[in-house]
Amino acid sequence: MYSIGVDIGGMSIKVGVVDFDGNIVCKKSFVTSDPSSSLNELIRIIKELTAEANIMPSDIKGIGIGCPGSVVKETGTIEILPNLNWSNVPIVDMLKNFFDLPIAIANDASAAILGEHVYGVAKNLDDVVMFTLGTGVGGGLILNGKLYEGGSCKGGELGHVTLYVDGEPCTCGRRGCVEAYVSATALIKNTKMAMLKNKNSKMWQAVDGDLDNVNGKTPFDFEGVDKTAKTVVENYVKLLSESVLNMLNIFRPQMVIIGGGIGKQGKFLTDRVDAYCKSVDYGYPGALIPKIVPASLGNDAGIIGAAALLNQ
Amino acid sequence: MYSIGVDIGGMSIKVGVVDFDGNIVCKKSFVTSDPSSSLNELIRIIKELTAEANIMPSDIKGIGIGCPGSVVKETGTIEILPNLNWSNVPIVDMLKNFFDLPIAIANDASAAILGEHVYGVAKNLDDVVMFTLGTGVGGGLILNGKLYEGGSCKGGELGHVTLYVDGEPCTCGRRGCVEAYVSATALIKNTKMAMLKNKNSKMWQAVDGDLDNVNGKTPFDFEGVDKTAKTVVENYVKLLSESVLNMLNIFRPQMVIIGGGIGKQGKFLTDRVDAYCKSVDYGYPGALIPKIVPASLGNDAGIIGAAALLNQ
Repeated sequence: MYSIGVDIGGMSIKVGVVDFDGNIVCKKSFVTSDPSSSLNELIRIIKELTAEANIMPSDIKGIGIGCPGSVVKETGTIEILPNLNWSNVPIVDMLKNFFDLPIAIANDASAAILGEHVYGVAKNLDDVVMFTLGTGVGGGLILNGKLYEGGSCKGGELGHVTLYVDGEPCTCGRRGCVEAYVSATALIKNTKMAMLKNKNSKMWQAVDGDLDNVNGKTPFDFEGVDKTAKTVVENYVKLLSESVLNMLNIFRPQMVIIGGGIGKQGKFLTDRVDAYCKSVDYGYPGALIPKIVPASLGNDAGIIGAAALLNQ
Repeated sequence: MYSIGVDIGGMSIKVGVVDFDGNIVCKKSFVTSDPSSSLNELIRIIKELTAEANIMPSDIKGIGIGCPGSVVKETGTIEILPNLNWSNVPIVDMLKNFFDLPIAIANDASAAILGEHVYGVAKNLDDVVMFTLGTGVGGGLILNGKLYEGGSCKGGELGHVTLYVDGEPCTCGRRGCVEAYVSATALIKNTKMAMLKNKNSKMWQAVDGDLDNVNGKTPFDFEGVDKTAKTVVENYVKLLSESVLNMLNIFRPQMVIIGGGIGKQGKFLTDRVDAYCKSVDYGYPGALIPKIVPASLGNDAGIIGAAALLNQ
């Protein structure tokens, strides 16, 4: 059996045929536009891909859709995708007109952790927490062996837990949230501020003297040779670790997965988070010790995670 | 059908016969001592109570035990009760020698929320969060209609989530946790500190000039007539509300219950927490709005919650 995974993103919509083991058989992507045009293109691409892969409708388990915003599962509706200006799109009903298949929908952070749970590093684990460190900070939860999305699928906002009450302003309207410190956006901002304060930082060379060239890799690339970069990274690791510790105390998971753009630092980052958590007894004396690991599904995690929605 | 609820506390062990609706038919308590003497007394009291209530063994659903520490459910063992110096007490097996009944065990914070879910204010709700504001800060979670205790029943430590990284030292070994700011202990400490700074505070009268007489009610009793008390309470409400908001973003529950000693301030406290949460959109623009309410089971909540463990 195969599943179709659809990863709706701010720039592009990626679609793939995913096999039983979570391997991508074939995939295509197209530029995201308004809902109606995007859906027409999506329908065309799904037909094209299944033809290309030579798959019968009876071999398809269903279509899974992950999207960067909120959904209403009961009605199969995309409620709002803030970065795309999509709202109230009854995507499941629209697709059902063309495909007589089960169709599932979820927030992309939920799809990401489900992908890891069904096909990736968290197979067969009962309690898993995932942070996705990108423009914002997404959160995913597997509790008692199942995806947990919170009341009306609106929970799991692990990026919106305080690190400092009254701290940095956050996109959610509050202050001091995890997202305001450990998103890629926050890391880039903090790197720039540190560079402005330290004109002799070696990071200036890397960006040709132009702060617009700073990205989430910059401080990591230079921390071995540059004090300013080292301080930025150490502070980042500390605040990410504190964010992880909070979730350890709530869930005592067997595993914490770090994904998203900054998560690409891989074991180099997760080992340091692990060391920090160890230094404070993983949040509690005698606490259960979780594995703290990088996301395992790579660049196609969005497609694979969406496909995993059929395995709930 | 009836259940036996056993509430193990630092000072006393309370035992009650609880009917189908969560009413206490009869109850007794005795002073907590070492595990062996306490268990002998417990066995005697359970027999006495069932005789008194004139209940046949066939009318008893089972025995539920709530205790202030960690348990291992699989083996029915009390792992550790820090304030009592009890460790590795196989309480379920020991009781099974005397009672041929189902016996369930849990942390007291878990028992508390289950009591509210089975018999109290949270009946029939799927997602509920509870804070117990006492010497420490306990946490309880009902997720998808069931008690959630975290991996190996060691999660739900909602008191050990940061409000201020590197903030006040916490009993858990970290700094800046919720417990270090919103426990009764923290409130009393902050009240004393404020009084020492403000010798003309009216609170001095209430305590006859002796700081040892300050308790968790003191600042609430005086906030209408004393600026110092008002500031202490306002800061307390704010930090409790921020703690609640964090959980709203993770769980989007239908209800948040505030219990424990400070929770006895009732609606006076929960309405203010609600107003604060409202002022920041309940944690997110467009967020689901939970009910924020006081615990409903009163002084016997421990017995009733323990009895509710048989209804899982």
